[in-house]
Amino acid sequence: MEWTREQRYLPYEKHSALELLKLQAQAANSSYQMHYHVRPNSGLLNDPNGFSYYNNEWHVFYQSFPFGAAHGLKSWMHMTSPDLVHWQSHGLALAPDTEYDSHGAYSGSARVIDDRLFLMYTGNHRDADWQRTPYQLGAWLDKQNQVTKLDQPLFVNPDHISEHFRDPQLLKYNDKYYAIIGAQEKDTQEGHIDLWVSDELTTGWQEVGYVDCMDDSMGYMCECPNLIDVDGHPVLIFCPQGLDKKVADYENIYPNMYLTGDDFDYEKAKLINSSQIPVNLDDGFDVYATQAFNAPDGKAYAISWVGLPDLSYPTDTENWANCLSQVKELHYQNGRLLQKPVAAMKELRGQAESFNGNVSHIKTGRQFEMTVDIAADQAGTLFLAAAQDLSAGLQVRFDTRTGKLSVDRSHAGQPVAPDFGTVRSVKLPADQPLKLDVFIDHSLAEIFVNDGEHILTLRFFNDPCQVWAGFDERINAHGTVWQLKNM
Amino acid sequence: MEWTREQRYLPYEKHSALELLKLQAQAANSSYQMHYHVRPNSGLLNDPNGFSYYNNEWHVFYQSFPFGAAHGLKSWMHMTSPDLVHWQSHGLALAPDTEYDSHGAYSGSARVIDDRLFLMYTGNHRDADWQRTPYQLGAWLDKQNQVTKLDQPLFVNPDHISEHFRDPQLLKYNDKYYAIIGAQEKDTQEGHIDLWVSDELTTGWQEVGYVDCMDDSMGYMCECPNLIDVDGHPVLIFCPQGLDKKVADYENIYPNMYLTGDDFDYEKAKLINSSQIPVNLDDGFDVYATQAFNAPDGKAYAISWVGLPDLSYPTDTENWANCLSQVKELHYQNGRLLQKPVAAMKELRGQAESFNGNVSHIKTGRQFEMTVDIAADQAGTLFLAAAQDLSAGLQVRFDTRTGKLSVDRSHAGQPVAPDFGTVRSVKLPADQPLKLDVFIDHSLAEIFVNDGEHILTLRFFNDPCQVWAGFDERINAHGTVWQLKNM
Repeated sequence: MEWTREQRYLPYEKHSALELLKLQAQAANSSYQMHYHVRPNSGLLNDPNGFSYYNNEWHVFYQSFPFGAAHGLKSWMHMTSPDLVHWQSHGLALAPDTEYDSHGAYSGSARVIDDRLFLMYTGNHRDADWQRTPYQLGAWLDKQNQVTKLDQPLFVNPDHISEHFRDPQLLKYNDKYYAIIGAQEKDTQEGHIDLWVSDELTTGWQEVGYVDCMDDSMGYMCECPNLIDVDGHPVLIFCPQGLDKKVADYENIYPNMYLTGDDFDYEKAKLINSSQIPVNLDDGFDVYATQAFNAPDGKAYAISWVGLPDLSYPTDTENWANCLSQVKELHYQNGRLLQKPVAAMKELRGQAESFNGNVSHIKTGRQFEMTVDIAADQAGTLFLAAAQDLSAGLQVRFDTRTGKLSVDRSHAGQPVAPDFGTVRSVKLPADQPLKLDVFIDHSLAEIFVNDGEHILTLRFFNDPCQVWAGFDERINAHGTVWQLKNM
Repeated sequence: MEWTREQRYLPYEKHSALELLKLQAQAANSSYQMHYHVRPNSGLLNDPNGFSYYNNEWHVFYQSFPFGAAHGLKSWMHMTSPDLVHWQSHGLALAPDTEYDSHGAYSGSARVIDDRLFLMYTGNHRDADWQRTPYQLGAWLDKQNQVTKLDQPLFVNPDHISEHFRDPQLLKYNDKYYAIIGAQEKDTQEGHIDLWVSDELTTGWQEVGYVDCMDDSMGYMCECPNLIDVDGHPVLIFCPQGLDKKVADYENIYPNMYLTGDDFDYEKAKLINSSQIPVNLDDGFDVYATQAFNAPDGKAYAISWVGLPDLSYPTDTENWANCLSQVKELHYQNGRLLQKPVAAMKELRGQAESFNGNVSHIKTGRQFEMTVDIAADQAGTLFLAAAQDLSAGLQVRFDTRTGKLSVDRSHAGQPVAPDFGTVRSVKLPADQPLKLDVFIDHSLAEIFVNDGEHILTLRFFNDPCQVWAGFDERINAHGTVWQLKNM
């Protein structure tokens, strides 16, 4: 279905409740639907927003267009969890219902301030000539999950920044509020992370300037910047759209990357001793707009949109699209991020079955976790979500002698964005054993490699009867498969 | 809010999606909302429908008016579960979208036939003069949870039955299909359970006649009849509206009762050796329209609407109302039903804390299970959902010497149907110990007595800060409190 601009921006009150009820049922009944990940109640989900810990529970919101698989008029939908794994839906939290967010309550962050949660987000406004003004907006969420928007914008893009100015992350340092915001310099059409400061939060915002973190250009726009502390190191996570592949290689239509440093200078807007060369946060096909924050326990947690801008997915014909990743606990090791499942993921585990590398196939179902240990001198292919004779399925190819690992989804059902390749690879140390922790949720795979040194996240849309896993030849390996419960 | 007929019967497509999104968020964010029971996505929930086991999961539907706390235009909403405890919403399943169910897809049952689930239900149709015709209708649910309605009704009320003819339960016996249906005889205005038979299911239905199960009158209408086998005994569960209290005592506005027998004669429509005097299925305030069925394992399971017709509840002002009970496993003992929590309820248990009868108060929170064993010579009051000083709360009064047990909700927050009394009592054997298994879910209490010999189910609407339990004096008792997880 082709969506016209009018259809995409039709006010929510002009859609009928019957249409929405049918869309909600359609999403819930899809055979591709995830059962232990945050997925849209209906329509399209994109960026995670407002990831936070408040009122004794975890919160995450997601960007939603509830009326189909299109990037239409966006709102924030609200989820809470006691443990970062079991999420409950609280429905519509931020609707596009003011002049300032009339064309979308776009992405943003959340921060506990006193006894309320402050939401800072971008209001997308277009005038009658479809000229855009991006307003940076604020709202309060109380303990009853009721939202009260501020009457006035916090600030707008200064003259030197184009209409591409969005996705604020609210920070606090030395009793001042800071925000980093994705920005495009008007003259150069280059992307930047822009730093702002205020003593007051709701007023008095002033631009500090672009964050100095890369000597090379970030491309034409930088979306969804996050600054977090990971084991004492500042880490910038961001989406440098149009990044020159000579600067850092990536294969997805848009990358989601990170830089590390030794310190962050808020006054000078500088990542001290930046790693300079951004690194792919996820080595799979479908991660974008990751949002990370430091929890009260000091740990850094991240959650990602599994989906990419400007791509279509097979569920578009079912009028829904995308999901959020599982939450990943972040750690720092030798200038690199480690990403690990959170502890409560183990609470999803049900029945377990062990296997070894002589097993040609094992029935996994479509909702499971699999850990695999492969010896240091082995080469072969692990099939996942496969036909029983392994004639189709996700292919995880490994050679622990040379340290090669790749995932091929070209034989795993309906194609997804084939123009951007069907294989993703990572380079590992040679002659080392390989450890995988694989999570499958119907049409989503998250493959943690060597205790989180890499993670490959991807969607696939196979025949629901392809519920097998196995090696195509004898491999010196052993592993366990757990059935996972619904969240 | 007073609802006009026009408002209650406004077609779903005339309501806006924004209205529905707001109602869904309002229900989700209510401090009274249940977290491990089936509750309405929005608006009003009433009867459970189509309780069944199909396609490797449990199914239950519920009667829904999605647009507020009113008995308006009804549809079926669909839930599934792997274990009878963790339920997932699949949304709208049966909409009131044909001539035959134009004014409501009313209650009914489900039965697996070949590889599909057959839904048999009452279509509520009214003509331009608001004259009602109740159609008994059929629909197929397939493994993708898609519903296909039959083109034509199965049958309508025969001449001798009034417009009150609804709630079919589909049965199978000796290769024939049977249905029992709540009915009102036109001339006498008396309630009956009417039995029908068909060789073909979708055609050829003929009336067998009223079920002979009580010498006394059932009152003016009998709703929601169920015939099940419980440990080898036929049991009829039904709602005899207007039952004379001289026949069987009850205090709720409408009762939900049962009869037992030794056998059921389908050809003669007779409960052989009927117990004759119906017994309250639940001794609390708020159970109605219980639906029961025999699962493939032969066991009988029941689930109830927690809510009563013609009553208002405090959440009406929040635009939602009611919930389903937990599923109860039924057993037969000396002509009485035992009702027990299903095995998987234990999987909700989290942190446990033991206590004894010397403890004046224990902090339980609002979502917990409590087992209590009280010795045979004790009298006192157990407070639940109480203020820390026990000045307010649900009062469970017991005297194990005389065998008296009662629940008083008059000091547990906002009143609910006070015209029908604030205390419910059961009589137990004298000089025996007392065993309670109490489940609290925010505004719902389910109190199982002596391993299911009685159950008292009720709603209460107290101050959310009342999170304490305790005895008002020293009692020879011990117990355990478990925090319960969300379903």
